Amino acid sequence: MAREHDVVTLGETMIRLSPPSFQRLEQATSLEMRVGGAELNVAVGVARLGLRSAWLSKLPENPLGRLAANKAREQGVDVSHVVWTKGERMGLYFVEFGAQPRASSVVYDRADSAISKMKPGDFDWGAIFSKARVFHVSGITPALGESCAEATLEAARAAKNAGCVVSVDVNYRAKLWSEEEANRVMTALMGSTDLLITTEEDTKRVFKIEGADYREVARELQKKFGLKAVAITLRETVSVWRNRWSAFAVVGDEVYEAPTYEVEVVDRLGAGDSFTAGFLWGYLQDDVAKGVAYGTAFSALKHSMPGDFHWGTLAEVEKLAEGGGLRIER
Amino acid sequence: MAREHDVVTLGETMIRLSPPSFQRLEQATSLEMRVGGAELNVAVGVARLGLRSAWLSKLPENPLGRLAANKAREQGVDVSHVVWTKGERMGLYFVEFGAQPRASSVVYDRADSAISKMKPGDFDWGAIFSKARVFHVSGITPALGESCAEATLEAARAAKNAGCVVSVDVNYRAKLWSEEEANRVMTALMGSTDLLITTEEDTKRVFKIEGADYREVARELQKKFGLKAVAITLRETVSVWRNRWSAFAVVGDEVYEAPTYEVEVVDRLGAGDSFTAGFLWGYLQDDVAKGVAYGTAFSALKHSMPGDFHWGTLAEVEKLAEGGGLRIER
Amino acid sequence: MAREHDVVTLGETMIRLSPPSFQRLEQATSLEMRVGGAELNVAVGVARLGLRSAWLSKLPENPLGRLAANKAREQGVDVSHVVWTKGERMGLYFVEFGAQPRASSVVYDRADSAISKMKPGDFDWGAIFSKARVFHVSGITPALGESCAEATLEAARAAKNAGCVVSVDVNYRAKLWSEEEANRVMTALMGSTDLLITTEEDTKRVFKIEGADYREVARELQKKFGLKAVAITLRETVSVWRNRWSAFAVVGDEVYEAPTYEVEVVDRLGAGDSFTAGFLWGYLQDDVAKGVAYGTAFSALKHSMPGDFHWGTLAEVEKLAEGGGLRIER
Amino acid sequence: MAREHDVVTLGETMIRLSPPSFQRLEQATSLEMRVGGAELNVAVGVARLGLRSAWLSKLPENPLGRLAANKAREQGVDVSHVVWTKGERMGLYFVEFGAQPRASSVVYDRADSAISKMKPGDFDWGAIFSKARVFHVSGITPALGESCAEATLEAARAAKNAGCVVSVDVNYRAKLWSEEEANRVMTALMGSTDLLITTEEDTKRVFKIEGADYREVARELQKKFGLKAVAITLRETVSVWRNRWSAFAVVGDEVYEAPTYEVEVVDRLGAGDSFTAGFLWGYLQDDVAKGVAYGTAFSALKHSMPGDFHWGTLAEVEKLAEGGGLRIER
Amino acid sequence: MAREHDVVTLGETMIRLSPPSFQRLEQATSLEMRVGGAELNVAVGVARLGLRSAWLSKLPENPLGRLAANKAREQGVDVSHVVWTKGERMGLYFVEFGAQPRASSVVYDRADSAISKMKPGDFDWGAIFSKARVFHVSGITPALGESCAEATLEAARAAKNAGCVVSVDVNYRAKLWSEEEANRVMTALMGSTDLLITTEEDTKRVFKIEGADYREVARELQKKFGLKAVAITLRETVSVWRNRWSAFAVVGDEVYEAPTYEVEVVDRLGAGDSFTAGFLWGYLQDDVAKGVAYGTAFSALKHSMPGDFHWGTLAEVEKLAEGGGLRIER
Amino acid sequence: MAREHDVVTLGETMIRLSPPSFQRLEQATSLEMRVGGAELNVAVGVARLGLRSAWLSKLPENPLGRLAANKAREQGVDVSHVVWTKGERMGLYFVEFGAQPRASSVVYDRADSAISKMKPGDFDWGAIFSKARVFHVSGITPALGESCAEATLEAARAAKNAGCVVSVDVNYRAKLWSEEEANRVMTALMGSTDLLITTEEDTKRVFKIEGADYREVARELQKKFGLKAVAITLRETVSVWRNRWSAFAVVGDEVYEAPTYEVEVVDRLGAGDSFTAGFLWGYLQDDVAKGVAYGTAFSALKHSMPGDFHWGTLAEVEKLAEGGGLRIER
Repeated sequence: MAREHDVVTLGETMIRLSPPSFQRLEQATSLEMRVGGAELNVAVGVARLGLRSAWLSKLPENPLGRLAANKAREQGVDVSHVVWTKGERMGLYFVEFGAQPRASSVVYDRADSAISKMKPGDFDWGAIFSKARVFHVSGITPALGESCAEATLEAARAAKNAGCVVSVDVNYRAKLWSEEEANRVMTALMGSTDLLITTEEDTKRVFKIEGADYREVARELQKKFGLKAVAITLRETVSVWRNRWSAFAVVGDEVYEAPTYEVEVVDRLGAGDSFTAGFLWGYLQDDVAKGVAYGTAFSALKHSMPGDFHWGTLAEVEKLAEGGGLRIER
Repeated sequence: MAREHDVVTLGETMIRLSPPSFQRLEQATSLEMRVGGAELNVAVGVARLGLRSAWLSKLPENPLGRLAANKAREQGVDVSHVVWTKGERMGLYFVEFGAQPRASSVVYDRADSAISKMKPGDFDWGAIFSKARVFHVSGITPALGESCAEATLEAARAAKNAGCVVSVDVNYRAKLWSEEEANRVMTALMGSTDLLITTEEDTKRVFKIEGADYREVARELQKKFGLKAVAITLRETVSVWRNRWSAFAVVGDEVYEAPTYEVEVVDRLGAGDSFTAGFLWGYLQDDVAKGVAYGTAFSALKHSMPGDFHWGTLAEVEKLAEGGGLRIER
Repeated sequence: MAREHDVVTLGETMIRLSPPSFQRLEQATSLEMRVGGAELNVAVGVARLGLRSAWLSKLPENPLGRLAANKAREQGVDVSHVVWTKGERMGLYFVEFGAQPRASSVVYDRADSAISKMKPGDFDWGAIFSKARVFHVSGITPALGESCAEATLEAARAAKNAGCVVSVDVNYRAKLWSEEEANRVMTALMGSTDLLITTEEDTKRVFKIEGADYREVARELQKKFGLKAVAITLRETVSVWRNRWSAFAVVGDEVYEAPTYEVEVVDRLGAGDSFTAGFLWGYLQDDVAKGVAYGTAFSALKHSMPGDFHWGTLAEVEKLAEGGGLRIER
Repeated sequence: MAREHDVVTLGETMIRLSPPSFQRLEQATSLEMRVGGAELNVAVGVARLGLRSAWLSKLPENPLGRLAANKAREQGVDVSHVVWTKGERMGLYFVEFGAQPRASSVVYDRADSAISKMKPGDFDWGAIFSKARVFHVSGITPALGESCAEATLEAARAAKNAGCVVSVDVNYRAKLWSEEEANRVMTALMGSTDLLITTEEDTKRVFKIEGADYREVARELQKKFGLKAVAITLRETVSVWRNRWSAFAVVGDEVYEAPTYEVEVVDRLGAGDSFTAGFLWGYLQDDVAKGVAYGTAFSALKHSMPGDFHWGTLAEVEKLAEGGGLRIER
Repeated sequence: MAREHDVVTLGETMIRLSPPSFQRLEQATSLEMRVGGAELNVAVGVARLGLRSAWLSKLPENPLGRLAANKAREQGVDVSHVVWTKGERMGLYFVEFGAQPRASSVVYDRADSAISKMKPGDFDWGAIFSKARVFHVSGITPALGESCAEATLEAARAAKNAGCVVSVDVNYRAKLWSEEEANRVMTALMGSTDLLITTEEDTKRVFKIEGADYREVARELQKKFGLKAVAITLRETVSVWRNRWSAFAVVGDEVYEAPTYEVEVVDRLGAGDSFTAGFLWGYLQDDVAKGVAYGTAFSALKHSMPGDFHWGTLAEVEKLAEGGGLRIER
Repeated sequence: MAREHDVVTLGETMIRLSPPSFQRLEQATSLEMRVGGAELNVAVGVARLGLRSAWLSKLPENPLGRLAANKAREQGVDVSHVVWTKGERMGLYFVEFGAQPRASSVVYDRADSAISKMKPGDFDWGAIFSKARVFHVSGITPALGESCAEATLEAARAAKNAGCVVSVDVNYRAKLWSEEEANRVMTALMGSTDLLITTEEDTKRVFKIEGADYREVARELQKKFGLKAVAITLRETVSVWRNRWSAFAVVGDEVYEAPTYEVEVVDRLGAGDSFTAGFLWGYLQDDVAKGVAYGTAFSALKHSMPGDFHWGTLAEVEKLAEGGGLRIER
């Protein structure tokens, strides 16, 4: 039976408010409003690449909740499984864009959001996952609260049982939970996980695995948790406006490496999620090499676009991955 | 001994976010950011009129908290008594501006703000009020929570004891508390109150006093609570963009009436607070007639200015109150 | 079997570009970009009211074409039946907002759009309409070209055959075709039509039916074309910024009349389409009275929102239709 | 010999800075920048109506000076006679847009502008006026300083000698000179004047002529100064956003009256200058009736356009003057 | 006899619409509107440098056509020879600004523009060129259609006959014609050409001449077509935001080389046209060395200015060409 | 006795108007409005770092004058000693932001500002400085006019007499005075100076002291004028968008050096003033090493913020000075 969704993701999306033109929040008189959140970013990314995706969350029945659903839908993400609540709030975050030596920074105002009240049983996992090929979640979702952690584990197990590939991005957020809590929950989550996407930094903080050779770190994760694949993204922060970006994946005994992209940074939020989207796109075609290559190219492109979401096309990724130039096309 | 502040107010200020150009929140991509809150609006108003004012509140030590203090200070309001907290949040509200037949509307996201955690003892009332002439608070402050109600009553009693004039605006907010709760707390507050500012609607809902003749309503309030003065503002909503606005006050046996202004509405938030500011300005000069006249003119002008704050001058109020025209001056 | 879509519409959507703040095009340095088109506006309207709608069109596979589909999807409209083309263009229109005595005006640049090349056979009408309850189209779609007229007639017949209610809005556009052409095609279209929505002006120009009593005009239309229902919207242009707006419908022997709304005009484009949406919403509940009442309230509200689309909710319509006030809610 | 310019005007143009969206200057963080000045406004107006105009002034050789010339040129006004200076400044003015009961207001910062240093001999009047049909100046130009008054009188005499029609708009500015000074200079100027454009208010302040019947006032001016024509514009300020606007002219024994227009006011600056432009346009066709009718329609339209300049077309004036409606054209 | 225009150019100008702040078109809600087109850009450039220029084109008589003429006029370009048409459209193009590794890109919507209908005989070449010193056109003009190619050849021949210097920029646009078509028409055009401006890339694609040594390529062009001068601009795309830019010219046996400028790219559209403007400015002074030096400096500066047009001054070019620094002047 | 102000500064603040997005003034239609001026920038900087500062100036009693005071107050600067005048003007400056090879540039319109009329006796220096710890002024204040020079010298002497540390920033402005005038006045000012902040360039132009070793230059200044400390800031302009920034100070026999920061330049105006603020902050703690280190870090951060003012916090300086990274915090 054909499955309705290629990728289903679960997580929080917040209203994202940012002062324009490198202003600090204190000097701003207007804020640009967008929405963003790791798992929705992934769902958007795979939809941009032509796959069918759905995003699961809880949203308040008010203009801000509708805004979040609208923006997901605008990008082609199915939001029909979103649970609507009364009287809860949307989480918010405020982004200040920096310039060397001032890093960009984020102020969160996400406590008590509708999704942070998620608990086991809120979604009919069986019905949802029986029609999906991949379930993806990041470490942010279980970090939103104890009942969120339980619901995330429940979801991952249900997805596994339903025959989905389970994909997890570590995405450690120190403002949400301690390294110890993260270690406990993420280790449990690994029991149902097939694909792990992470960074060297997150691996060290959450799983206490580190090493000079990132490939060795990936292999150790792979072995420890019996994972099908481990992908690690690599960022070098040359300056705030200029980064180098790459990734690789270890699958079985193979290592797949992407080239390194020089990126001029318009907005790096969501770049990691774009890698995940591209990686899953390749994985679902049984072409991990392409997943790594296109995921890296797709996420390199993301840095050039304002907002958490990717607004590119598969044709653009193909062109870049195959060495397209920087001349204006006309 | 000269008192340092003419007017001290106590209350919440929120970050105010509004879509430009009559957009609905769902269609906006940017929001105008200002700050506003009834008692700060009053402190700003009296400062614009040349008096010395201070505003008491609790603010989180983060960019949004600093923003609120900055904006008060910009207008000349003393914020040196603000209590700064760690880890709390600022309340927010979202304003959609309407057009007939769609009323303007407000979505609040104010739960768990720093000030909502206010409790008795948070401020050194004695030290503060010994240097003040008037203490003003509205019914929103006690509505923020039970401990806020206690702290407000404590403040009013302390102000009274310190020889301040105590001024209260009923400002009933159905989203914050029930009419019964409001009745109980506001009645208690009346025990320390000298000046009451209200509307016919709020009087009916909170004190269950109503009548065809608003002057009678005012007198009944005056008598029931032993008040020095009762002022009532009168709004006729001809359309969303066009209102009629007036006020009167009952002091002892006298009734002071202001003319009715036709107003073209740019932003009516804070108009009532501007009346209070002008009324207190007159009251502090022992000229209630001028307080009513200038308060009404000052608040009529407020409707023409974006944001909760008043940005006019005493000279402008004088000119309007004395019948200034609408020709461009040049 | 439950039908998948409550309303399916067919027509052009254009990129809409408008100078902000009442500027003329010649003085503008930026343009606000939205999308709009009569039939998509209707599909959006019914989706806002909670129904399931789909929109049929042809779009070029480029950023502007994707933009149009995105914006439809954002509002919950199904665009999975849109036909994507290579090398065609999107139609554009430029809107200048006026102020008495300068009317708002529209400059079209819509020739050779992808949808204007529509021809019979482009869509699988049978498959589409077998799952739909209503098919709606306006007189603009057949006016886009001879083959568009043929395809529109084909669609209406197919819808009728598939058991759909066929709804038509006359929407005469003098810049697209002559009154004679419109008369010929629209008369043919009436052969498959159940519900007709029109204005007194359009009826006179297209069907040459006029009269002092609009109810008589409606009845004459009803009789002449054997229609189930005829609805007529009524606009009085008091000034550019102030209109009066109402509507009525004749169904069988009954006349259903809506109250007249005073409207402050932010943007009147799409108001008629919002009426259609509300009317169909009521019709699909077998409650024509509610359709007229809610359709009129829904379209009165539309005037207060920038853009062709409606961004309101069923709750807002209900409140207005039941006499809600203009006070700020808080 | 055909004359190169239909209308030549002489005067100051300033950089005009205005806060958007009804903000007060104190609360603004950005200002809209345009240019404007009575005589350039007239030159622009006649160019929009299809005539050939030139504008005479002194401008500093810096970006702001160039900006003023650019904007004149953009509208088709010949600036080749402008005198460029080193080290002088452009005058500026700041406009705050109001709403009832707050009138719009202007703050000038125009002292020591390049043009205020104008003196007799700065322009080669003979060469310029020998190729012109009309010379127009307003009372602002001589008010800029004593030497400006002298130069203006020199210009008017030269124009008269060269066979030009001399047109003068009283345009009294109390911030620039006293009524006594204005009376002295403007009376002298009347010696070379053919056409006088004024308001009832300015006539009273400058020429001390008043009366209940404006037509009588016009006739008195006509007789006293031996003028060919006197035109008076009539504004009724219903509210800041709503005015009534009309005009009439007395030529010989005839009175030509325009209808009264209801205007929704976007920006009334420059409206009087648009009347002058339209009036001169008619006068140059020897059709004063049309000049009054079209001048009034043209200036009524001006109120709907942001900035001092008119951005309309002759076709639009024709349509309005002949009773065009307010429906959106499409 | 003194010639009225130093440089006359012929070509299309389009409305240029671009999303602000690196947004993709799909995510934009407003577009910045400017105008641009290779030959008008050149006419503007030479006017900025102090020469007298005219631009020839066909424009529709509507607000967008007027906008194009206005913007040319604003910069001092004579548009009195523009041919105005009824019912045609303006071409448009949409520019997305990129960041490494996403190149900036252009989406054209230029089919069926008024100028694309140009044909021989539309302009009175004899009258126009008898008063001009240089005629300049780029390869875009003949690429707009077969009749445009014919008219361009006609114009070049007429210019040559009238004693003008004929200047041609290859400007190959693959979206408009094939390399074969370009080769045929451009080769014919070379028969009347004196000055050729090109890039290494365009030379290869259109004339099939290439080589490692660009100077040799230039000499080969010079010899093959009997040209007085060949100038080649050289761009190194270090990244999207950072380019290196230079140029050289071969005149007779001499090679004139400009220094290489590091440029931070705000907007590179029109940079090549600015080189042409500066080169012609020098050529018209019989100082090719200065033409190359100033042309390169002028175009290097262009990269720092938004829009296709140059907004600099001769003084700025002089300062840069003579080694001016980057300190803020104050 | 505790002194009320840590730092008191004296100088002009202007309205700062700048076109957004790298536009030239000639192409702008809106200007961003801020305020700035060297000495107010310093007062703001020390207030941001937690000290108590006051700013002395003369301001016109109009909206622009109030704006300047508001913005100072917003940042916590005491403006109660500002002298308000009638009929004077605010100075203005226009900033164009550049990109390599176009430097950013400033156009001043500051003649005849209220503060330029300052003369000895305008302020009660004794009362002011008796409550202050540091008096700071830059070379701009005496450059505003002869009487300003006299008043500045009077102020410095009074400050010295009152026991204040006197701090002077050379800040040479060639547009305000000649090197000779500057030499004469600044040399006289050195007689009352304790701390000198300068650049290598300004030292050469004003004091005619230069040398390959900047440390030697500093020592020579120190010795010549008997200064307690000399600080020199060092800027390397790699490109317009990329600078290197450092500083050092010589105090007694010690040299304190800061690291060099790579800065991405959003807005470099006010950076030197931020160094002064940080340096004074350290000096007032008797920790010159920290003053140099934090001053340099604070001013490096300034480059990333739009406007002349600093909007950072002490915590941010600490983090940077101690080697904080560029990762987004979350």
